[in-house]
Amino acid sequence: MARMSRADNAPQGFAPPLGDMSIEEFRRYGHQLVDWIGDYFASLDERPVLAQIEPGDLIKQLPTAPPEHGEPMAAILADVDRLIVPALTNWHHPSFFAYFATSTSAPGIFGELLCAAFDVKALLWRAAPAATELEEVVLRWLRQLIGLPETFGGIIYDTASVSSMHALAAAREHVNLRIREDGMSGRVDLPLLRIYSSEQAHSSIEKGVLTLGFGQRALRKIPADAEFRMQPGALAHAIAEDKQQGFVPCAIVATVGTTSTSSIDPVPAIADICTRENIWLHVDAAYAGSAAVVPELRPVVMAACERADSFTLNPHKWLFTPFDLSVLYCRRMDVLHRAFSLVPEYLRAPQAERETVTNHSEYGIQLGRRFRALKLWFILRYFGHEGLAARIREHCRLAQLFAAWVDAAPLWERLAPVPLSLVCFRACPQRANESEADAAARLDALNEQLMHALNASGAAFLSHTKLNDKFTLRLSIGNINTTEVHVRRMWELLHEHLARLSAR
Amino acid sequence: MARMSRADNAPQGFAPPLGDMSIEEFRRYGHQLVDWIGDYFASLDERPVLAQIEPGDLIKQLPTAPPEHGEPMAAILADVDRLIVPALTNWHHPSFFAYFATSTSAPGIFGELLCAAFDVKALLWRAAPAATELEEVVLRWLRQLIGLPETFGGIIYDTASVSSMHALAAAREHVNLRIREDGMSGRVDLPLLRIYSSEQAHSSIEKGVLTLGFGQRALRKIPADAEFRMQPGALAHAIAEDKQQGFVPCAIVATVGTTSTSSIDPVPAIADICTRENIWLHVDAAYAGSAAVVPELRPVVMAACERADSFTLNPHKWLFTPFDLSVLYCRRMDVLHRAFSLVPEYLRAPQAERETVTNHSEYGIQLGRRFRALKLWFILRYFGHEGLAARIREHCRLAQLFAAWVDAAPLWERLAPVPLSLVCFRACPQRANESEADAAARLDALNEQLMHALNASGAAFLSHTKLNDKFTLRLSIGNINTTEVHVRRMWELLHEHLARLSAR
Repeated sequence: MARMSRADNAPQGFAPPLGDMSIEEFRRYGHQLVDWIGDYFASLDERPVLAQIEPGDLIKQLPTAPPEHGEPMAAILADVDRLIVPALTNWHHPSFFAYFATSTSAPGIFGELLCAAFDVKALLWRAAPAATELEEVVLRWLRQLIGLPETFGGIIYDTASVSSMHALAAAREHVNLRIREDGMSGRVDLPLLRIYSSEQAHSSIEKGVLTLGFGQRALRKIPADAEFRMQPGALAHAIAEDKQQGFVPCAIVATVGTTSTSSIDPVPAIADICTRENIWLHVDAAYAGSAAVVPELRPVVMAACERADSFTLNPHKWLFTPFDLSVLYCRRMDVLHRAFSLVPEYLRAPQAERETVTNHSEYGIQLGRRFRALKLWFILRYFGHEGLAARIREHCRLAQLFAAWVDAAPLWERLAPVPLSLVCFRACPQRANESEADAAARLDALNEQLMHALNASGAAFLSHTKLNDKFTLRLSIGNINTTEVHVRRMWELLHEHLARLSAR
Repeated sequence: MARMSRADNAPQGFAPPLGDMSIEEFRRYGHQLVDWIGDYFASLDERPVLAQIEPGDLIKQLPTAPPEHGEPMAAILADVDRLIVPALTNWHHPSFFAYFATSTSAPGIFGELLCAAFDVKALLWRAAPAATELEEVVLRWLRQLIGLPETFGGIIYDTASVSSMHALAAAREHVNLRIREDGMSGRVDLPLLRIYSSEQAHSSIEKGVLTLGFGQRALRKIPADAEFRMQPGALAHAIAEDKQQGFVPCAIVATVGTTSTSSIDPVPAIADICTRENIWLHVDAAYAGSAAVVPELRPVVMAACERADSFTLNPHKWLFTPFDLSVLYCRRMDVLHRAFSLVPEYLRAPQAERETVTNHSEYGIQLGRRFRALKLWFILRYFGHEGLAARIREHCRLAQLFAAWVDAAPLWERLAPVPLSLVCFRACPQRANESEADAAARLDALNEQLMHALNASGAAFLSHTKLNDKFTLRLSIGNINTTEVHVRRMWELLHEHLARLSAR
């Protein structure tokens, strides 16, 4: 980057370009902050993962009213150390194994820093040509990296919840029942619209269903098989039953990488049903989609995904991208456009421009849009295809390693297959002469205690789910800093905490 | 901020904490980037406001495929200079007067930088206690700054479009017709639900209506008066008419600071109607709400707003906060919660925690939430109440000044009142012996040409609207760097371009 030196030529009488902070002060505090962040990262291993505070602890330490007069930047930054850091759960800690473990990365942070400095609002092409065009470029690159065909257009949203909501809104438009124009209330002619997902689908699907006005009744949760995958037979049966009752199937949501177990719905069989019945197929690959950048994993996660109408993945989950950045690929961008386009006069660009550009705000609820493509562009370039694939491959290897330890250990059991980088397991020490119900209750309580004790120690952080009514521990590997050392240490910690609890 | 020096104690065998970038490299590139941003700001005055490129120019310069191998950070940063900067429309330029002019600020940029480094996802309190609690603190501070009573709870979303959609979803829940459970389709018992707004309301209201499944038919646009404010008489009449037909009024959206003219709907009279009819009142003060931090402007923008059920304002518009950060205040957080709460097992926190904390993700579509409160906390502290008020007061003074110049100039006319910092005007050179229709067409064409010529010059950027069918220029002042020098220069530029066009 070339240093510019045009400041000296600025006309007289102009305000300093950053409010009342001089450029020199901006540099000074900026350097200080960068150094501080470097130290923060360097010291992460020794910090607790889960914040060691009680609810309300931070609020208590802050004034109840805003300051009347401005405060020095130095005082504010000092309070980050004193007040904010102790209240952080450190997502970037290499022993963060909860939820889906994620991480930012240096190029991602730099991308966000520039995004905040440029602070463009991509309402229209002309308002932010760089953001609009770079979004097209990175979406094309990412599409190639995961192996979706060119028939897919794409758009960047904030979260998978919002991506999936848009997919379902497009599906609603696709049934062609004048819902954009006439809505869903006060209509005797509008049959019940159905959305189908596996019972293992993420709660965001149900939230999208609620938001769009379908209602909980509209969501039919299809039973999963013993490996937590949607049963296509049950799906076909449900659709036939619904059609017999005069209901209209609107969309089927297949999940590639469920949140509880990372199970992968049988997309090929589901796509067959969608084709036969002409139903919109949305694939929620928020977590697992990133794994498709690994050549040998691509067939596992992408089988038949090219037949989906829409497909979502979150680079902020497993592509080392700072939160938020969720991608929706869609084979029917025209339908998405029909569902959301509105161009008021105050946003009308010149005709010639409108005919040649894509205004992404016409494809979604949000009018203003951050320059999110910038950080993803940095990341795709900095790591390259190879670099991204190597990291995800290693995460999957670590999960297999951990799963093998669980399988070989007498006091532990694995509760789901491990197709990617998530291991579901629990401690299961047996007791003689115990009824099945007593054992079940005891093991649930034990594993919950174990998890809370381990998390409370600050040494590592993992979360849970329920599988076949069993309290299940989840070890998710996705942090760029997590190495075999951390996974091994986690396994030791589990043993230590189990021994301590068993000794009581 | 204290420098930490714990890195030396880190256990052996750990990966570098930023992927493969060493802390030293992170510091080096970070400093370089901070310096570059300082230079960028210092040179803004001499850059074009509107990007001087044609559609496709950036895409053309970028590879069609992602790199196989990682690239050096230096090469990526060099491309920011070479490729990204020329494709930027510079929102932070002091002569950016288009749409609603906005700006970031140094503390806001620092807040975003830390947000990207911490990269927490505020799914639950425990996942991000600092984000959860700081959100409560800054919302309390901001509520006091604008003078809303304590009866309002609040939540931070990304954009006003999303805030208003949530307000309308709460209103839908509030009509108590089992829409969460039974939805809106396939119901013969569900009457048409109506949403009312002024014809001057922002398009995001209509987009919210579309998204939620109400349909365009549900939105009744109430005529505005000569000063572009909703007519309460017409509203009362529309409601009576609708009720007679068996429709159910669901929500009324009043706008405080419309996008076209910054007109302010008569909230007191509208609130009377809402109280009488028991209809949810949402106030969209996305732009103008910030002006309530100025004591003498507070009565202008906040009159009767304490009677609203929900109220939105965007600190990213006029409080020098990097995009995105929109606030929704709501008197009925319980209703918002009922509309959106869903807690799957994998997100269930310990009972004791659940009883004491607020999990903001239960109040909206997004599960993951950025640590947006951090930048707003920085800004409220750095500027203080006084500093924010002084800047907004000055923007309003500049708008009055510009309006006075327009009023005094024979070739120009003002087309709307100027309650805040937006001036609507046009050039109106007269011609003898011209029919009214010819004059109207000529002036529309002239002002459109004038706007495009001025914008294309790069010297300044303004946008337009249509008022009473007239092509209307909008001068919006809201950038922290804009001074009287820039407004005066804008006025000269308008004259120069008008003279040039008139000479043809």
